[in-house]
Amino acid sequence: MIEEVLRKKAKVVDEAIAKYLPVSHPDEMYISMRHLLDAGGKRLRPTALILAAEATGGKMENVLPAAVAVEMVHNFTLIHDDIMDQAELRRGLVTVHKKWGMPSAIIAGDALYSKAFEILAESKSEPARVVESIGLVAKTCTGICEGQWMDIDFETRDDVVEDEYLEMVEKKTAVLFAGALKTGAILSGAGKKEAQALWDFGILTGVGFQIYDDVIDLITPEEILGKAQGGDIMEGKRTLIIINAISKGVTIDVLGKSNATKAEVSEAISTLKKSGSIDYAMDKAVGFVEKGKSALSVLPDSEAKSLLLELADYMIERKY
Amino acid sequence: MIEEVLRKKAKVVDEAIAKYLPVSHPDEMYISMRHLLDAGGKRLRPTALILAAEATGGKMENVLPAAVAVEMVHNFTLIHDDIMDQAELRRGLVTVHKKWGMPSAIIAGDALYSKAFEILAESKSEPARVVESIGLVAKTCTGICEGQWMDIDFETRDDVVEDEYLEMVEKKTAVLFAGALKTGAILSGAGKKEAQALWDFGILTGVGFQIYDDVIDLITPEEILGKAQGGDIMEGKRTLIIINAISKGVTIDVLGKSNATKAEVSEAISTLKKSGSIDYAMDKAVGFVEKGKSALSVLPDSEAKSLLLELADYMIERKY
Repeated sequence: MIEEVLRKKAKVVDEAIAKYLPVSHPDEMYISMRHLLDAGGKRLRPTALILAAEATGGKMENVLPAAVAVEMVHNFTLIHDDIMDQAELRRGLVTVHKKWGMPSAIIAGDALYSKAFEILAESKSEPARVVESIGLVAKTCTGICEGQWMDIDFETRDDVVEDEYLEMVEKKTAVLFAGALKTGAILSGAGKKEAQALWDFGILTGVGFQIYDDVIDLITPEEILGKAQGGDIMEGKRTLIIINAISKGVTIDVLGKSNATKAEVSEAISTLKKSGSIDYAMDKAVGFVEKGKSALSVLPDSEAKSLLLELADYMIERKY
Repeated sequence: MIEEVLRKKAKVVDEAIAKYLPVSHPDEMYISMRHLLDAGGKRLRPTALILAAEATGGKMENVLPAAVAVEMVHNFTLIHDDIMDQAELRRGLVTVHKKWGMPSAIIAGDALYSKAFEILAESKSEPARVVESIGLVAKTCTGICEGQWMDIDFETRDDVVEDEYLEMVEKKTAVLFAGALKTGAILSGAGKKEAQALWDFGILTGVGFQIYDDVIDLITPEEILGKAQGGDIMEGKRTLIIINAISKGVTIDVLGKSNATKAEVSEAISTLKKSGSIDYAMDKAVGFVEKGKSALSVLPDSEAKSLLLELADYMIERKY
């Protein structure tokens, strides 16, 4: 059910992207802005925005510009992240800075960002609600920057504690999901309590998804994950699992050892399993998602609300 | 007179920046965002925004958030430009990417950009006018990106014609000045004709200033310019002067020769003078500024309007 809905909404969003972000002069700039957008993807954020609108009495066609805008914001962060990480591939495509060079990729990201606000400002809703949603999306973007900054800061620190990690994840990944949901609600005339419930749902499930993703990296076999199991360990990422293990006095010698052997990584994963840190993180992830789902209890029952609840479950079930 | 006004308004803007962009968590990110902002500057764009508001019946205190926002947008473009150009110094300070590293500088710029829209969304005006001004600033930012993209593209082209150059300059530098002016008008309840007049004034004088700047680089002695005379020639910049000379069949051998001697640059400048291209550009600059000033004739007379006209003259008189 939810997968079918995701496919349908993604198709509508794809068409709206082509409509709201046509290639115009200078053509090559617009082509670089569309590069990752055209590669597709699940369109989770715009779909969540549309479902939030529908769950609060709104209509998809009225929030489509906003849905496109949040997808553009997401893609802008991907382009700039790839420059910062010097990544070469994204969604199976060569990254924007690898294809057009670093200066052009900075511009492509910046331009996507501007276009997102241009499109948001065209939203069909009461002007006061449009202003509120723009303020929210802008605040969300500031939050993403704060989370990104913290993430870079963490790379050179050994003393990151759980609360800091959760704040970083909330800002780096959950706020845009939450911001998309709340934007859908605001533009649809939702009351403050409903809009807040959708924000809370987004933050809690968003943090849950990210923790789950960190668990998945450790427990999923390479043939299903599509990349080496335990890649996060070799990268030295301070995930909740690592932070929890360190707090228990567990030492992971190969943390950050980019040329660690499969056997070494396997042993590190065993150590983390024995320490209970993987279970700890998995329980946390499920706990966040459940708490997020319960936040939606203030909304009247509707098909859209059921789909949002299904989406939350789907997000922590999707791998294997 | 105008210099005194600029000083006073700059002081108000400086205080507003400190108020609207306080250093908060993560502190270092906000410090990096304030780095160039705190170095001062003439605050031409926010001052123009305030004067436009006053010239259309508005009050400075109501448009201060917007004035801060356009200065933040300007600074965001400087941070990203410095990364692209690998510049080491700006306003006598080490650049953001030199001090904090490239990834952090990308984030600092992005965060300034978000904050600008956050602050704009707090503007005190009718919501429909706030939405219009946000749409305008966003469109302006897209324009800056387009101009920047064209500028990079021109570096590898020998066939840039005058119209393309003027379009690039309009987008890269004039739209933000024009956008600031029109934003001040929109937020102050100006009619469409007045708002458009301020936009036209900004575009025309902005293009004029930039052409004048290119002339200044060639005709100002090093001790006044503060950098080598004819630096643009050594950098290979396709300024209006160069484009005009090339269109007349004049060849500048040292164009783009970064290690050209003073004598070689001097000779190139003489050649450009003889070709009439420097006079051509200077006339164009003055013509744009005059045309810009005449656009303001639709506004009722006021002190603010007189100051805007003075500002235009001041901008093409300032050097020596």
